[in-house]
Amino acid sequence: MDAVNTLIQTRMASKHAPRIPEVTAHLVEAGGKRLRPMLTLAAAQLCGYEGAHHIKLAATVEFIHTATLLHDDVVDESGQRRGRPTANLLWDNKSSVLVGDYLFSRSFQLMVETGSLQVLDILANASATIAEGEVLQMTAASNLSTDEAIYLQVVRGKTAALFSAATEVGGVIAEAPADQIKALYDYGDALGIAFQIADDLLDYQGDSNATGKNVGDDFRERKLTLPVIKAVAQATEEERQFWQRTIEKGKQAEGDLEQALALMAKYDTLEATRQDALRWAEAATQALTVLPDHPIRKMLHDLADYVVSRLN
Amino acid sequence: MDAVNTLIQTRMASKHAPRIPEVTAHLVEAGGKRLRPMLTLAAAQLCGYEGAHHIKLAATVEFIHTATLLHDDVVDESGQRRGRPTANLLWDNKSSVLVGDYLFSRSFQLMVETGSLQVLDILANASATIAEGEVLQMTAASNLSTDEAIYLQVVRGKTAALFSAATEVGGVIAEAPADQIKALYDYGDALGIAFQIADDLLDYQGDSNATGKNVGDDFRERKLTLPVIKAVAQATEEERQFWQRTIEKGKQAEGDLEQALALMAKYDTLEATRQDALRWAEAATQALTVLPDHPIRKMLHDLADYVVSRLN
Repeated sequence: MDAVNTLIQTRMASKHAPRIPEVTAHLVEAGGKRLRPMLTLAAAQLCGYEGAHHIKLAATVEFIHTATLLHDDVVDESGQRRGRPTANLLWDNKSSVLVGDYLFSRSFQLMVETGSLQVLDILANASATIAEGEVLQMTAASNLSTDEAIYLQVVRGKTAALFSAATEVGGVIAEAPADQIKALYDYGDALGIAFQIADDLLDYQGDSNATGKNVGDDFRERKLTLPVIKAVAQATEEERQFWQRTIEKGKQAEGDLEQALALMAKYDTLEATRQDALRWAEAATQALTVLPDHPIRKMLHDLADYVVSRLN
Repeated sequence: MDAVNTLIQTRMASKHAPRIPEVTAHLVEAGGKRLRPMLTLAAAQLCGYEGAHHIKLAATVEFIHTATLLHDDVVDESGQRRGRPTANLLWDNKSSVLVGDYLFSRSFQLMVETGSLQVLDILANASATIAEGEVLQMTAASNLSTDEAIYLQVVRGKTAALFSAATEVGGVIAEAPADQIKALYDYGDALGIAFQIADDLLDYQGDSNATGKNVGDDFRERKLTLPVIKAVAQATEEERQFWQRTIEKGKQAEGDLEQALALMAKYDTLEATRQDALRWAEAATQALTVLPDHPIRKMLHDLADYVVSRLN
C-alpha cells in the first residue's frame, strides 16, 4: 500500500495546473479507507502474482473511485465528505468536474501501462456500469416505483462494479485460472453490495459520530434506499401518500423523519435490510472457497464479516 | 460517416437509464460538424486501411468530444450551444456531468474493442491533456499574466489534443510508417490550433448569425483569448487597469466591450491573431507533404484552408 500511495502522489501531480493536486490531495489525504486498491493488491497476491503491475492497477482503481466521489458531490450538492467540507464547497463545481475528469484520464493512462487488454476491457465495462448506475440513481432515487431489483442495479453501479473490477483485475494480472478469476469477481460483487446496503442502513440507524453523516440524510435528500423501498412495498394507502409527499414531491415538514422511522419500524424493514446485508456478506465469503488457502484469503473473509459487523 | 453515425446511435443507448440517450441525442443530433470522426476516417483511408476498426475509433473520438461539451457547458454555465439551449439548461447540471461520464466510458469500451494498445495509449494521453487543459483554462482564463505560451497550452488541451489524436489513431490503425503517423499527428495538432484561434477571433469579429454566438461572449465571460492577450502585452498602465477591472475583477459596465475592441484595434491584435491562425493552417498543410498523394490528402489540405477562410 505504501507503493500505491507513492504512485498516487506522483500521478496526481500536474505540471501545468496546480489546482489539480490541491483538489485531489483534499480527498486523497482525507483518510479514505483505501479499500478498493487494497482489494486489488490482495487478489493479485492471493493468486501468486510476483510482478509490479498490481500497484498500478490499485492506483487506477483508487483514481476512478476519487473521480466518482468528486462528481458525486457535485451531483448531490453535498457539503460534507469523510467529515470534511467537500471540494465543490472549498473550491467550486467546475474544479470538481474537471479534476474528476483529469483523474479518470490518469487512471486510464495507468491501466494502459499494464499492457493487458483483458484488464482494460474489465475496467472499461466497470466504468460504463458505474456511470449508468449513477444516471439510473438520479432518475430512480425519488420515484416510488423503484423496487428492490432497480435498487440492486443502482448499487451494483455505484459500488459493487468497482469492487468486483478491483478484485477481478488482480486475478487477471496474476494470470489466475478462469474459475479463480470468476470467484474474485463474485467476491467483489457481493462484498460491494453488502457494503452499500450496510451504508444505506447506517444512514437510518448509525451513530453520526462514527459515520460522519447525520441520521436520515438519505430521507432528507429524497433518496429511496432499501429500508424505505421495503416499507413502501407494504404501505397502506395513507402511508403511500406520506411517502409520495416526502420522497416524490419532497415536501417535508418537522416530524416527517420520525414518522418515516416509525413506518420502517412497523414493517421491521431495518432488520430485513440487515438480513439482506448479512446474506450478501455470506455470499462473498462463500465465493472465496474456490481460491487458494492463504493468509490473504482469511483476511478477505474477515473483511466481509467486518463490513456487516457495524450493523446492530 | 453513415456507419459512424449508426454506431454512435447504437452505443449511446442505455438499457437502464433512458435519460442517457435523451441528453446525448440533444447534442449529437444538433448537427455538429462531425469534424473529428471525419479526420479519423480520412487518416485511416489515406494510409490505405481496409479494415473496419476506424469506424469504432471515429465514434470513440466523437463520444469523447460530446462528453467534453457536456462538461464544458456545466463549467462555463453556458445557456446555448450550436444555436440551441444547452443540456444543463434543458435537464440539469447533474445530467450533463453523469451523461458526460457515461459517454466517456462508452468511448473507452469502443477503443478497447480495437485491441490496439498503441491506440489506447494515444487516446489515454489525449484525454489527460484535454482534462489538464480544461483545468488550466479555468485558473488561467481571467489572469492577466496568462501569456501566449499558456494560451497555446490551453488551446492544445481544449481543441488540438483531440484533433491530433483523431488523425494519429487513423494512421496507427492502418499500420502506417512512423513518419506518416507523425505527419498525421502534426497535421491534426496544427489544424486544431488554427481552428481554435479562428474561433477565438470570430468571437470578436464574427457574424453572430453564422457563429451562433454573440460578439464579445469571451470578454463578458472574462476569458482571455489571443486578441486580448496581445493587447494586454502592449498595454499602457491605464489600459492595464482597464483589463484588470474588466477581466480580472469582472467589473464590467456598458461601453466596456466597445473600449476593449478599441484597444484591440489600437494594437491591431485582431489582424495579428488572424496571421497566427493562417500560419498554423499553413503548418497543417505543410505536414501533409509526407503523406501519400491521394484525393483525401487534397481534401485535408482544403479543410485547413477552410478553417481560416471564415476570417476576414
